[in-house]
Amino acid sequence: MIDLRVVLAEPLYCGNVGSVARVMKNFGFEDLVLVNPCELESEAYAMASHAIDILESSRTVSTIKEAICDSGLVVGTTSKFGTTTDEHVRMPYFPPKELKDKLKGRDGTVSILFGREDFGLVNDLIKKCDMVVCIPTDSKYPVMNLSHAVSIVLYELCDIKPGKVPLAKKENVELLFDHCEHLLDEISYPPHKKEKTILMIRRILGRAELTGREVNTLRGILSRTEWRIGRDR
Amino acid sequence: MIDLRVVLAEPLYCGNVGSVARVMKNFGFEDLVLVNPCELESEAYAMASHAIDILESSRTVSTIKEAICDSGLVVGTTSKFGTTTDEHVRMPYFPPKELKDKLKGRDGTVSILFGREDFGLVNDLIKKCDMVVCIPTDSKYPVMNLSHAVSIVLYELCDIKPGKVPLAKKENVELLFDHCEHLLDEISYPPHKKEKTILMIRRILGRAELTGREVNTLRGILSRTEWRIGRDR
Repeated sequence: MIDLRVVLAEPLYCGNVGSVARVMKNFGFEDLVLVNPCELESEAYAMASHAIDILESSRTVSTIKEAICDSGLVVGTTSKFGTTTDEHVRMPYFPPKELKDKLKGRDGTVSILFGREDFGLVNDLIKKCDMVVCIPTDSKYPVMNLSHAVSIVLYELCDIKPGKVPLAKKENVELLFDHCEHLLDEISYPPHKKEKTILMIRRILGRAELTGREVNTLRGILSRTEWRIGRDR
Repeated sequence: MIDLRVVLAEPLYCGNVGSVARVMKNFGFEDLVLVNPCELESEAYAMASHAIDILESSRTVSTIKEAICDSGLVVGTTSKFGTTTDEHVRMPYFPPKELKDKLKGRDGTVSILFGREDFGLVNDLIKKCDMVVCIPTDSKYPVMNLSHAVSIVLYELCDIKPGKVPLAKKENVELLFDHCEHLLDEISYPPHKKEKTILMIRRILGRAELTGREVNTLRGILSRTEWRIGRDR
């Protein structure tokens, strides 16, 4: 069973936060996390309408890291998609329908990140995501209202078939990436290419939706590889 | 090719009208008709953001009939779906994905009606629709914000495969329904059942998405039937 969490990164307008709470309740979701949000003034409550409970039970945190810490998968949403597979920040990206297919049969917490109204999710946040989702909009005006984007993603994800294949815990996946980075150092990988390559590995393993067991096995392989390298020194 | 028209029936809040304009432009739609709308004050323009052109080119009319007159198909949206096939007002109803499948390969104008914020589309308006669409929401809080509902419907319909099977003109379909009603009178159909039966016929032929030729042929059959009845009198 997928537990879906909506994470709003630094929302600027409290009316939007209220609107997001409303549509979450419309689709049966409850877990709302706000990262450094604006003040939730009366307009937030007006727009939430009968979903004030969602607004009141939302968690406010100061970093994205806190917001996503116990997630099995972190999905970033953007209207600015990549255009070349040479860059890995926003590539590959998936439409919401494909995200739904990918989550079928999985079990764990999936955090969906939505950026602030004026410039969306910046690259530094997108890089923390395992997957990038982009709603297919018209190129003449691709930038959606925040709560509209949330509506569409939740509409797609509200009836995911439940499953029992557990997603790995985010903390363990992060340790795996640290481990990869460490190996690149060990093999004297060109430093100027390192960040880009780590991001590529993040995109590959992100869309592979690793289980906890797979993460442990991969880390075991990396450990043995490092041990072998050390022995020959 | 389907030309999609968004019809807002008596919207109460101009911010919602602006939001609808924005999401129309996000998905590449332009044809917005407002039936007896509220005043479009500055908030409408603020919410429309870069879609002020959609707002400015919208048409304002005073009746639903004017709004839908040249449509090949009229679709009503509601969060209150029917629960028994004994009633035909809101039954059968389709989720947006199925509407998309039904429109595949068709050619003509499809009007999608959205009711006012406080009580949606009343039965009298729903009865004028050929088809009823209902977004699958949580039963605890099914009522969506107007612009969220529009977002989801447009998201589903923005990439319908174009086709060349022309939908019948609404005027001709209405003449067909008048003709059916006339026949019911001719055959002394029980008056207390008439309205319900006409609505049932409307639902059946609505979801069949008749072509102009089919409408003409059906009217021909009705004419010949009436002629035959008359001859025996």
